[in-house]
Amino acid sequence: MGRRRMLIALDAMGGDRAPHEAVAGAVQAARQLDVDIALVGPRGVLESELARHGPLPAGLQLAEASENVAMDESPAQTVRKKRDASINVAMDLLKDGTAAAVVSAGNTGAVVASALLNLGRLPGIARPAIGALFPSSEHGVLMLDAGANAECKPSYLVQFAYMGSAYMRSMFGIARPRVGLLNIGEEENKGDDLAREVHQKLKRTQLNFIGNVEGRDIAQGMVDIVVTDGFTGNVAMKISEASVDFVLSRLRQLLTSKLQYRLATLALRQAFYDMRRHFDYSEYGGVPLLGVKGVVIVAHGRSDANAFKNALRTAQEALAAGVLEALSGIPKK
Amino acid sequence: MGRRRMLIALDAMGGDRAPHEAVAGAVQAARQLDVDIALVGPRGVLESELARHGPLPAGLQLAEASENVAMDESPAQTVRKKRDASINVAMDLLKDGTAAAVVSAGNTGAVVASALLNLGRLPGIARPAIGALFPSSEHGVLMLDAGANAECKPSYLVQFAYMGSAYMRSMFGIARPRVGLLNIGEEENKGDDLAREVHQKLKRTQLNFIGNVEGRDIAQGMVDIVVTDGFTGNVAMKISEASVDFVLSRLRQLLTSKLQYRLATLALRQAFYDMRRHFDYSEYGGVPLLGVKGVVIVAHGRSDANAFKNALRTAQEALAAGVLEALSGIPKK
Repeated sequence: MGRRRMLIALDAMGGDRAPHEAVAGAVQAARQLDVDIALVGPRGVLESELARHGPLPAGLQLAEASENVAMDESPAQTVRKKRDASINVAMDLLKDGTAAAVVSAGNTGAVVASALLNLGRLPGIARPAIGALFPSSEHGVLMLDAGANAECKPSYLVQFAYMGSAYMRSMFGIARPRVGLLNIGEEENKGDDLAREVHQKLKRTQLNFIGNVEGRDIAQGMVDIVVTDGFTGNVAMKISEASVDFVLSRLRQLLTSKLQYRLATLALRQAFYDMRRHFDYSEYGGVPLLGVKGVVIVAHGRSDANAFKNALRTAQEALAAGVLEALSGIPKK
Repeated sequence: MGRRRMLIALDAMGGDRAPHEAVAGAVQAARQLDVDIALVGPRGVLESELARHGPLPAGLQLAEASENVAMDESPAQTVRKKRDASINVAMDLLKDGTAAAVVSAGNTGAVVASALLNLGRLPGIARPAIGALFPSSEHGVLMLDAGANAECKPSYLVQFAYMGSAYMRSMFGIARPRVGLLNIGEEENKGDDLAREVHQKLKRTQLNFIGNVEGRDIAQGMVDIVVTDGFTGNVAMKISEASVDFVLSRLRQLLTSKLQYRLATLALRQAFYDMRRHFDYSEYGGVPLLGVKGVVIVAHGRSDANAFKNALRTAQEALAAGVLEALSGIPKK
């Protein structure tokens, strides 16, 4: 393998369970995946975390970043103020060509602000968008925007549709990804002003626009990409996650409520394990921030080691699939 | 019981499975609940449906309505055009005092339009709102607006908060119902312009406003009423329903995939039955349309007989609880 391996910069300080789980996930990824990883954070902190994991795997390196962005800070301001925050250092590695991609489970607002500040937008893209993956068919349904832009103009949503199509085509080999508009009814005159205008605009594109979609269409995999504004998308993503968690926790509660249930459940252990795995965000491995000049994967704030490993795998796959090149082919207007 | 029983008008033609399930639900309700029911629809259709159910229960009567509002018609226009639509006739019975409440599983837009046209708004209420009940604690969490108003002004959401508080107080005896604003983060500067402005307005009310809430707060029962615009609320309700359905159907799929699972599942039949029941919209029995001059309960479009019966029960409870009187006490400004 004479080819130089790709380096992925991991913001080791981002996420509710960082740096502990971030470092553990990086160690797993370095051992299991064919990638090099730069752990970005305060060297002392990272070294003592790494000490728990025995000999340092080949392909794992450290990149010093002295500061951190806390979850409760105003992300955009902090990113500007703390030039040496781990997310900024990671983006710098991407910008100067040292790294090929960035992975972070940090505050989403901070990741978006840092990507905009350090990498900038792709030509012709007014606003980057964050994806959310809804469990459905094998690859899931990608919703854009899941929270980068609380206020959106109609043209942004059309760009999200192009970006989502390019992503799903390159990542999953879907020739004509189906694009739906999240709305409150099938008919094209349904919804608020934004939805109605976007509907008309999407009809005039060359995209595979299938019309308005609602919750059931997403769950049934009738669509590959769902576009919406970042407010609605963020609410939808969190409600869906919470609903899934609620059903699963209710199920757990019921099945442990009686001895006879607990005994019967033993025989179903594998089934429940598969079930949890199917709905486990940590298996999905992060979602893309699309529209900036670089491959940026956002991992869940609650990421554990497995989630970090899978986010690094997603970054590797996005690089191999040429996602950024696919995104650069979007019509400018 | 010398007291005259309350009469509830049921739009027998509304819903995906009307009139069949509507009539069956009315028969059940007339037998089990202490209410009189007027089945509203074409007499011939209703009589042949009733013939399946043996002797007509006492307390069940028919009210002739010759027309129907189809799901694919423009609801507001149709309601105006078809004066004799079953939903209009039901509202008329309420308006002239013959009936004390209306129940319909018909097109939500048609129910709202007919209520506005025939009953009008309560004084001081700019827009009526539809509730959605999220499974959570024993009484569920009421989200307003779940779809009556795709576009909302900040003042509407404040009224929704008042109406929701009055409803939860009178229906469930919650002294100081907790009101949350559906948003994309905890901090008060989060969200779009609408959310930020509503947050400031709610802070200045006498309501028990607990701040912004997200999916997890709802599922964990941290709040009793969630206010949002009708676009976001409708999306949230449908995504939540679809997510719950998806998990349950995935579970069913897994548990029937192997003989050993099917055998173990036999011992868990009661647990799964309880589980399905807990998440079954038909057990919730309809949600209120708040802000019009009358008790109007909207049942799920997919309502079966049990759902219709429970919606009639909800109407009965709302009447007994004095919901309309509670709503009339909302500060006008």
